[in-house]
Order: sequence, then structure tokens, then C-alpha cells
Amino acid sequence: MTLIDQTLEELVTANRILANHGVVDTFGHISVRHPENPDHYLLSCSRAPEVIEVDDIMEFTLDGEAIDPKGRDPYAERAIHGSVYKARPEIIAVVHNHSPSVIPFGVTGTDLKPLLHMAAGMGTEVPIWDSRTKFGDTTLLVTTMEMGGDLAAALGDRRAALMRGHGSVVVGRSVREVVFSAIYLEVNAKLQLQAHTLGDILFLSDGEVEAILKRRGAYTFERAWQGWCHRVGRPYEPAPGS
Amino acid sequence: MTLIDQTLEELVTANRILANHGVVDTFGHISVRHPENPDHYLLSCSRAPEVIEVDDIMEFTLDGEAIDPKGRDPYAERAIHGSVYKARPEIIAVVHNHSPSVIPFGVTGTDLKPLLHMAAGMGTEVPIWDSRTKFGDTTLLVTTMEMGGDLAAALGDRRAALMRGHGSVVVGRSVREVVFSAIYLEVNAKLQLQAHTLGDILFLSDGEVEAILKRRGAYTFERAWQGWCHRVGRPYEPAPGS
Amino acid sequence: MTLIDQTLEELVTANRILANHGVVDTFGHISVRHPENPDHYLLSCSRAPEVIEVDDIMEFTLDGEAIDPKGRDPYAERAIHGSVYKARPEIIAVVHNHSPSVIPFGVTGTDLKPLLHMAAGMGTEVPIWDSRTKFGDTTLLVTTMEMGGDLAAALGDRRAALMRGHGSVVVGRSVREVVFSAIYLEVNAKLQLQAHTLGDILFLSDGEVEAILKRRGAYTFERAWQGWCHRVGRPYEPAPGS
Amino acid sequence: MTLIDQTLEELVTANRILANHGVVDTFGHISVRHPENPDHYLLSCSRAPEVIEVDDIMEFTLDGEAIDPKGRDPYAERAIHGSVYKARPEIIAVVHNHSPSVIPFGVTGTDLKPLLHMAAGMGTEVPIWDSRTKFGDTTLLVTTMEMGGDLAAALGDRRAALMRGHGSVVVGRSVREVVFSAIYLEVNAKLQLQAHTLGDILFLSDGEVEAILKRRGAYTFERAWQGWCHRVGRPYEPAPGS
Repeated sequence: MTLIDQTLEELVTANRILANHGVVDTFGHISVRHPENPDHYLLSCSRAPEVIEVDDIMEFTLDGEAIDPKGRDPYAERAIHGSVYKARPEIIAVVHNHSPSVIPFGVTGTDLKPLLHMAAGMGTEVPIWDSRTKFGDTTLLVTTMEMGGDLAAALGDRRAALMRGHGSVVVGRSVREVVFSAIYLEVNAKLQLQAHTLGDILFLSDGEVEAILKRRGAYTFERAWQGWCHRVGRPYEPAPGS
Repeated sequence: MTLIDQTLEELVTANRILANHGVVDTFGHISVRHPENPDHYLLSCSRAPEVIEVDDIMEFTLDGEAIDPKGRDPYAERAIHGSVYKARPEIIAVVHNHSPSVIPFGVTGTDLKPLLHMAAGMGTEVPIWDSRTKFGDTTLLVTTMEMGGDLAAALGDRRAALMRGHGSVVVGRSVREVVFSAIYLEVNAKLQLQAHTLGDILFLSDGEVEAILKRRGAYTFERAWQGWCHRVGRPYEPAPGS
Repeated sequence: MTLIDQTLEELVTANRILANHGVVDTFGHISVRHPENPDHYLLSCSRAPEVIEVDDIMEFTLDGEAIDPKGRDPYAERAIHGSVYKARPEIIAVVHNHSPSVIPFGVTGTDLKPLLHMAAGMGTEVPIWDSRTKFGDTTLLVTTMEMGGDLAAALGDRRAALMRGHGSVVVGRSVREVVFSAIYLEVNAKLQLQAHTLGDILFLSDGEVEAILKRRGAYTFERAWQGWCHRVGRPYEPAPGS
Repeated sequence: MTLIDQTLEELVTANRILANHGVVDTFGHISVRHPENPDHYLLSCSRAPEVIEVDDIMEFTLDGEAIDPKGRDPYAERAIHGSVYKARPEIIAVVHNHSPSVIPFGVTGTDLKPLLHMAAGMGTEVPIWDSRTKFGDTTLLVTTMEMGGDLAAALGDRRAALMRGHGSVVVGRSVREVVFSAIYLEVNAKLQLQAHTLGDILFLSDGEVEAILKRRGAYTFERAWQGWCHRVGRPYEPAPGS
């Protein structure tokens, strides 16, 4: 398979895995920066993640222009992806979702912080972006590059941001990393909701998060990916280009 | 397919989708106003939603008289549907259910309000109807047009109402809209229960709800419907008459 | 099919349905009074409910003596069943389980009360029996008729009792009724746990519970049974002897 | 089958059962002491538990040296297993996992105690080990025998220990016992989280835990194992060597 074909197959698998974990429902999406052209990215047309196939994946400029739409409708919120790729040259993959356990933190202004070593991929700080602050009463959908840019600015150099009343955005240096981070962001949120009812929480220290992120690599991501491929009935393939 | 046939197939699919989401269990039902006769509506005979087929669907007058029962037993609570269709000419579809996360709000008199953009279909206000206020100690079942009328009056011009100790009623201008609203009413209730344990909740503003409802259309409903059809093994068909 | 064969098949189906709902896990059991001999009852040998077949079902005297064991091992806690049948001539079926949401009520001494019309089958009062009060430090298992008798005395003329640190016992006048009551006891407990975090709960009034129990009959039980049979892949058959 | 073959098959089944219960996700592992050489143990290579086959199982010295790796990568945290086998000659099987409901207790310093008779296998006291106390800011992974030894010392002669921000370790005198204990540790944790919101909890007394552990034997473990084998599609086989 060519690098592009490998990337498309990996993106299909990623959609299925995120759906299987309930991190996306019929909404939410994952993109990857084009492996041969960093000014483009790949993202499915507007479909539910659990039914996406290779032929659904479209190519976009960072401003969200479809290269060869072939009649397919793009996601209304693709500006989230392009805006992050513009602001963060090192980022290779972006997930936007309505991951359920994360929502209560955004609407109550509660700090979502890592309490489990598996969840260190969220970083030590997850800012909350509120579309209303700058844009007033909207549909909350990030449908313009201006809104996308404001969200990317709030994200800054971090790994995830909450979107009040809407969901979250998670970024990573590979499809496998961002899928892992998005899944464990949901796990951590659920655990933090529960731990909060018991008492004060001892979160991971900054040093622990740093140590985990430094060491975390293919070992961790491949093991998870292999198991998750099995669960969704997709073949396990090595990471594109590896 | 004729318009009637398309409508019957859509109603079967709607039953399966609601069951798959746990929004109905073996109880709860969804009806649609007859597409060619606004004084009649279509509703399954008394069966669990997950096993309903086209031949189970009966036709009723708004007063709940079966047109051609063919020996089938109707739901005892069909008065809910007819009463809403009488009071609200613009309403095309009605769901009544015992959607679990919604119940705690009805029995504690807690305001259920939209905190997630996907849940704006519940509107800014969800009244709580208590059968006991007017009818005293009953089975709580809405078995007469008088009870149905009282419930419809409590609903007023809103999109959903809770029924204390019983469940809820959700209304919409199409089967797909009402299924969408009922599913996200449950999602919102679950999230509000969790958010409540963290602190004060910033709900959607009235302006945000209005903006979302104004924009929401076939784009949103078709994408969800397509994914949900896949999940329950039903073919995806365009909306009846479209 | 003979009445006995119908009863055995219904009991197998009941085991599968309770397992499917998580009301029993690999432990927990359901019995039925022998349809032709009220001094005997039918109960599976010691197996997980989800794998029980007709040949696993044994016949016992009310004192728990197996009539024709054929080498099969009985449940250690069959005394629960015989003790209830002795004390309550009108009772036809008994469920004992570790239904999860019910446990927190038993260990905190919190009143579990019906807040949902579907859950009226638990009655207005569910006593908590603590084996330690009379028997001291035991395994908590009800392995003797003396312990069973003490539990049955705590149950009195009610429809369900909690067993502290252990589970619950639910009784009914038919297999379908007791399965229905046990499933909705679990549903109610889960909802009460959630409602409790929102505020004071308005439970069903005594008059409402009475009205529901008076009206509830084959209509309700058959509709649920039909849907549940479908879910566990068992044929739907009319109630034995009907 | 030879004793080794029986043991390998049982270990594969144990992995599948733990995964089916959500006690391990794509991470977490279970080992067994070598049945013919107490100075060795058997543990899968680095794979997700739900996909493990007999050929994945490797043999290790108690210091974690692979006997015949055949190119397979071991788990990074196998030191947990060897350290426990060194410190506790009577222990035959060890589970390490990130069992979700257990995590909130570790990060809030809340005592996790048995409130359900099925969960007595956790013992009366479950200590919390914090890797940071002795080793400072690490990845929290137990990757050296020194860390494993410190964890084993914290475990002492008990049956389970929590690992702050990470998970837990559960030990037993057979594969079936440790699987049972790990599953009900998770169940108990979930119930304790819920009961805590209702009020003060009456836990099992020390005498009750002792009585249960004294009586618990093949009767209980085989019945559970049989049902769980069915659920994961594995054949039920008697315990190795029995």
C-alpha cells in the first residue's frame, strides 16, 4: 500500500474505534494532516463515524476548501481541524467530539485534570473555550475559520481543550496518539466525576505527567491499537510509513 | 413505495432506534400523524418497540378509535398521542417513554434544561405534569382523552414535558426530529445529573437555543438517522415524501 | 406441552431474562411452586442463570430435599425459596439475587421506595433483613431453613425484602410477575440513587401503588415478556395453563 | 492435556473473562505461577487481554527474565508479578489492572472495604501504595524489581492493594480465585461509590469476612467460571490438575 492508502485505512479504523468507545456518537470527527502535503488534511465527508469507509474521506486545504469533493458534503465544523493545523505545525491529527463525561466539566467550569497515568496525554491543563465570550449567541458550531482560530488560540500549545456546552478538541502527533488521548480523556473525566464525590483528589504531579509523556511511544500505542482493531473487526496494520 | 409505505417503514425504524438507545425499553411508543389525513395518526399495536414490524402499525382517529384493528390490541396510553395532535396542528410525531435519566427530574421537581447544543430540541423549558394534581390516586397511566388533554395543556407550545413518576412526552415536526429530540433529552438529563454534582451549571442561553433550532434541519437529522439505521440493521431511506 | 413442560420452559426463559437484565449475574436464582403439587417447588441445580436448560431444573420439597437429584448439585441457598413458599401460600414464584443498585440501600439502611409507576410491584415498603442480628458472624448465605424462616418473617406479607450486604428476595403470584418486579426493583433503585443527588423525592403515594397493583395484569406482563423473550432468543409462549 | 497445557488454556480463558468484565481494558494482565516450577511464572507477551492465545504466553523467572522469548515482547510491568511470587510463596496467581471503579479510591485516599459478601475476597483491608512516596516523579509504571518489591511490601499478607493514580494488584491461590476476587473488587468499588452518596455504610464485619473466606471453595469458583466461560465463548474445563 502507498503511504496515502495506509493513512486512509488508518483513519477509517480510527473512526470505528472512537465510535466503539462512545467517544464519538453519530457526531464527532477525526482528521489527519496529509502525509505528503502539510498544507492539506484528510477528513471524512459528513457521515456517522461508525459507517465511514475509505471513499468517504475527502482532502481539504487548511482553510477548509475541498480539493475534489465528488459531490460529497463536508462536515460543517471542519474549521476546527484546519485552524489547529495552521496554528500548530507539529500536530498531525485532531479529534473533535461530544465525549459525554467531559461535558459536565465544561458547563460547570471545573478543572479537568489527569488522575490516571493512562490519561497523561491530556496534559496538565485543559482550558475551557466558550464560543459565547467572543461570538455571542450562536449555534455553538465552529463553522468559520475565525471561530476556529479563536478556539485554536484558547488551546494554545496544549493537548486538549473543552468547548462549553458542546464538547472538546484533542490533538496529537499521530492518529494513534490522538485516539489514545481522546479515549483516556473520557475515561479520566468519568473517574474524576466519581472521585469528586469521595473527597479531595490527588492528581498526577506535573513531573509525573512529564515523565509519562516522555516515555510514551509506539509500545503503548501499538498495544492499544491492536486490541481496539480486534474489537471493531478491522485488520491490525503497522503505523503508516513505519 | 407510496408515501404511506415510506411512513410505515420509517416508524418501524424509529421504534428500533429508540429501543437501541434505551430511550424506550419494552414500554414506550412513537406515533406519526397520518401523512394523508391529519385527523388520524399511526401507532403500533401493543408490542415492545424492538420487535415491531409494519403489520403491527394501526391507524387511529385523534380520539383513539382504531380504524381497522384486525384483532390487534392498541396501547392503553394512546390518548397521549391523539391529545397532542388535537392541541398542536403543527406537530407530526410524538414519543412517550420512560427514558431513565429523565425520571429523577420529574420526581424531585428539578428543572431539566439544555446544557449541550445537541439537546436544544428540548427547548428552554420542560414543564413537569403530575397526574395526581387533577386526577388524584391513579395508575398514572394516561388512559382517557381527559387525562391526555390535561397533559397536552401542561405541555402547551413546548417541545417536551415530564410526567412525574412515569416518564415524558416529546413532540416534533417529523419522526426524525422527535427521535433526535428524545435521544438527546435522555443524554442531557444524564449529563445534568453528573454536572449537578460538580457545581453550578451554565445552561445554553435562550439565544443559543433559538439559534440552534433555527439552523437545525435535514443536515443534522439525516446524518444521525443514517448512523442509527446502521446500528439497528435497518436500510437507510430518505425521509418520506422527500 | 404438558403443564409441567410449559412451566419448565418458562423457568428457563425467566433465568435468561434475569441474566440479560443484569438482575442476576452468575449467581442468583428463580424458582416456581410446582404447578401440580403446592408442597414442592422447581429450581435449577447450581449453575449460572444464563446457561440453564430444562434438564438442570430440579424438584424440591419445601424443606429443600431434592426429589430426584440425578447427581445434580442444588443451590446452597434454596432455603430462601422453600421458606417463602411455606410462609406464603399465595406465592407462586421467588427470585433471590444480588441485583447491583439495590445493595447500597441495604448497607446504608436507606428506605427503597417506588418512585416510578413501573416499579409499584415492590410495594410501598421494602424491609431490610440483616442476618447478623440473629445469627451473628456468618457467611451471610441462607443455608438453613431456620435462616430462611427468619428472612421470610422479615418479609412478612410484603413483595420484596433487602438482605444487608447480600442482595434481595422478590416474590410474586407468577413467574412473569416476579421477573417483572425484580427487574423494576433494580430500575427503581438506580433511579432513586440518582434522584437522591438532586433533592427530596416525591415517591408514589400508597393510593397510587394500590391502584397500579389492582389494574396490573396479563396486559402488562405479556407485553414485557414478549419483548424480553426476543432479546434472549427464546420463543414467546403463552403463560403456562393459559 | 498435560498440566502445563491445562494451565495455559486456563490463563487464556482468564484473560478473556477479565476483558469481558471490563476489569482489564487493552491493558492489565494476569499471571500464574508455573505449576511444575515455583520459581517461574507464566504471563502473556505484551498484547491486549481480549486477543491473547496460548502461543502468546511466555515463561519468566521471578526476576522477570524470559526463558524462551521467541521474539515476543514482554509486558513492561511484569515486575509486579515476580515480586509478589517472591514475597508470597502461597500465592499462585496475580492480576494487575486499571479496573475503573477502584481508581477513585486510590486518588482520594478513601478506604475501599467489602460491603457485599461476594467481595470478601478483597479481605478486610486494602492498602494504597503510592509510587511517588519512595520513587518520586516517575511514569508510575512498576518497571523494576525494586519498585515491585516496594509494592509487594505494601501489599504485605493481604489480598489486594491499590496503586495511586494507576490501578490495583490482586492475588490469589488459584487463577479462578484471583479472577473472582478481581471482578468482585470492581463490583464492590462501584457499589461503595454509590452507597457513599446515601449515607454511612455498614461494611461486612471482620468475622463475616473470615467466615466467608473459610467456606469459599471450588463450589463458588466453578459455578462462576462455568458461566463466565460461556459468556466469552471458551470451553469450560475443570481446574488444572483436578
